[in-house]
Amino acid sequence: MQPFFAQRFAKVEPSFIREILKVAMNPDVISFAGGLPNPAFFPHEQLAVASTKVLQNHSNGALQYAATEGFAPLRQYIADRYFKQYGMQVSPDNILITNGSQQALDLLGKVLVNEGDNLIIEEPGYLGAIQALSVYQPNFQGVALNDDGLDLAELDTLLAEPNHARMLYGVTNFQNPTGLSYSLENRQAVAERLIKHDVLMIEDNPYGELRFEGEHLPPIAKLAPDNVVLLGSFSKVVVPSFRLGWMLMPDWLCQKVTIAKQASDLHTNGFVQQVLHSYLQENDLDEHIERIRTVYGRQKVAMENALLKYCPGIEFTRPEGGMFLWLKLPQHINAMELFDVAIKENVAFVPGQPFYVRPDILNTARLSYAGADEATIEEGIKRLGRVISQVL
Amino acid sequence: MQPFFAQRFAKVEPSFIREILKVAMNPDVISFAGGLPNPAFFPHEQLAVASTKVLQNHSNGALQYAATEGFAPLRQYIADRYFKQYGMQVSPDNILITNGSQQALDLLGKVLVNEGDNLIIEEPGYLGAIQALSVYQPNFQGVALNDDGLDLAELDTLLAEPNHARMLYGVTNFQNPTGLSYSLENRQAVAERLIKHDVLMIEDNPYGELRFEGEHLPPIAKLAPDNVVLLGSFSKVVVPSFRLGWMLMPDWLCQKVTIAKQASDLHTNGFVQQVLHSYLQENDLDEHIERIRTVYGRQKVAMENALLKYCPGIEFTRPEGGMFLWLKLPQHINAMELFDVAIKENVAFVPGQPFYVRPDILNTARLSYAGADEATIEEGIKRLGRVISQVL
Repeated sequence: MQPFFAQRFAKVEPSFIREILKVAMNPDVISFAGGLPNPAFFPHEQLAVASTKVLQNHSNGALQYAATEGFAPLRQYIADRYFKQYGMQVSPDNILITNGSQQALDLLGKVLVNEGDNLIIEEPGYLGAIQALSVYQPNFQGVALNDDGLDLAELDTLLAEPNHARMLYGVTNFQNPTGLSYSLENRQAVAERLIKHDVLMIEDNPYGELRFEGEHLPPIAKLAPDNVVLLGSFSKVVVPSFRLGWMLMPDWLCQKVTIAKQASDLHTNGFVQQVLHSYLQENDLDEHIERIRTVYGRQKVAMENALLKYCPGIEFTRPEGGMFLWLKLPQHINAMELFDVAIKENVAFVPGQPFYVRPDILNTARLSYAGADEATIEEGIKRLGRVISQVL
Repeated sequence: MQPFFAQRFAKVEPSFIREILKVAMNPDVISFAGGLPNPAFFPHEQLAVASTKVLQNHSNGALQYAATEGFAPLRQYIADRYFKQYGMQVSPDNILITNGSQQALDLLGKVLVNEGDNLIIEEPGYLGAIQALSVYQPNFQGVALNDDGLDLAELDTLLAEPNHARMLYGVTNFQNPTGLSYSLENRQAVAERLIKHDVLMIEDNPYGELRFEGEHLPPIAKLAPDNVVLLGSFSKVVVPSFRLGWMLMPDWLCQKVTIAKQASDLHTNGFVQQVLHSYLQENDLDEHIERIRTVYGRQKVAMENALLKYCPGIEFTRPEGGMFLWLKLPQHINAMELFDVAIKENVAFVPGQPFYVRPDILNTARLSYAGADEATIEEGIKRLGRVISQVL
């Protein structure tokens, strides 16, 4: 038959990063391109124990259809953890379990975004958010992400417009792709502006637990609770394949987002919610995270040292946590072209251009230090240094 | 802050059925209202074995991020089963694993439906489809569902319009809510019209395996493969909480739907895909389904007999499979009002009105026979008979 597509999908093309990741899968390639957690930390044995325990109980409803909002004890666990970590008093009623936090972005697009609405996003920004929200066809407005957070002057200029955005998207801790974080002062300044201008922030926080330097800072959701949807995820701290994320929402959003969730897929897998909850009861999550943090922190230092050694003069961010680090190459280097050379030298990264909604910045690149050990990182950055010298 | 919503969600309200199901959860109530599979058939032990096996293997990627399209061996299993059951030659490349088949409806709405597009749906129709597709604001056009399938005269009238629908939604086997099926002749007639008028059908088939009378009929997807997306699900035959459904798509749809899936939630839970696949390797699915069929078939007969005995003169459908049966009450009975009386007599059903896109038919009701044993069904229908006599 004659194909047809909705207008919102007529021009959509496969993600560039998908293609890059395919190329980078060649086993000869040292890849800093992926965004995958290190599988050495996946708790296979503990999850096997938890699975068996959940399945031995035939009256816990673990295999039946389940509540759209999520498994109540897991929502309670998340609420308790916010109190323990940040002194935030939140009700589990305001927490919805999503199919990974990616789904939260889709639900928020569904419920909140009209075609053509202005939507502010930090730049460079998380590609998954750009993809999920693009489906609802907002007009993205980039605000530069600086070393200490959002560029407040740029933000103020946008918010001074009469028809300014009602929504703002940002990753406040160890951002993907840059590794940058919002300082306490920047969080406070952003919170003030959200309240003053009646703007809702999607505060995405998949990496916040993975801090290996400095101190935990309060989410903006603590500073302006009615103006923030805070997203969280177990993917980076326990297990990605379970697809368990959540959103902490202000009261006014709960009902419509729950309806959107029901329309989208009824509910998130109830079995793995119970398995994860059982795992969290029987194991010390903080100890587990500490092990991940220690290794990622060491690997980050190895990457920084290798960059200083093999890529002299190249600027890069110094993340205090998370999985990514951001290179700023000399102005005249196009990272897309650099990628083609690099892949021949068996090293891969992600060129930065797709992370911009104003796609004229070509000399940046994202590197992940999460998936490779220190010796591999050194060798990979050595290759990268050779490639950069070649191109210069 | 001042709440705001996208236009598509401004008027959305919680589903009526959700409210009904809450009332029906009182343990004194015999509920025929739910649509839940009978949990007695959930294979707890076998899934525990499969989970342990999957988790013992540390190199199968079961806990890592996974492919958007789904676990390749599971897609192959589904393709093989289509060949075995219907002689359909399908490629696993055309199968995408979804988070329950509900998600397939959302993905198809995203990729295909513009606001105001005509979209034909059988009437009464599956509420979950109406909810999922409503998000994309089509103009629903009802076509009556008769005892042998879609009303072809009504369908032809709609397809004769110059700006006719490009999409048609239907459940061809043991439909939710009526239990009705499309005959072979009706399937052929629908297939012809899809091809002639360049229409895409969403053929939803969650219950097809649960046939306890008559012979399996080929899906319309076999008769017009380029014009049909066939949806399937493991929820009714193995386990609902895993949220594992799939869509079999024509080539022209695969790429955009895969992108929509990636934007929506990256991928379906990879762990449970491997667990289910391991279960399917080690157990005989046909034997398992045979046990479910036998019991549901007996329960359906019990309900039919009880209806004849306690509700004389009330018309009802005679499903050859599935979980539901449909009552047509006397013209002047409003099933919504009947529900209020019934709940006081401790019996529950779902009034039929929400299943219509033309909501002026008030005297119908959906009953599920899947969840109650024969004695409970007899007692529940006895109560229902009393309630109907009261109201008449």
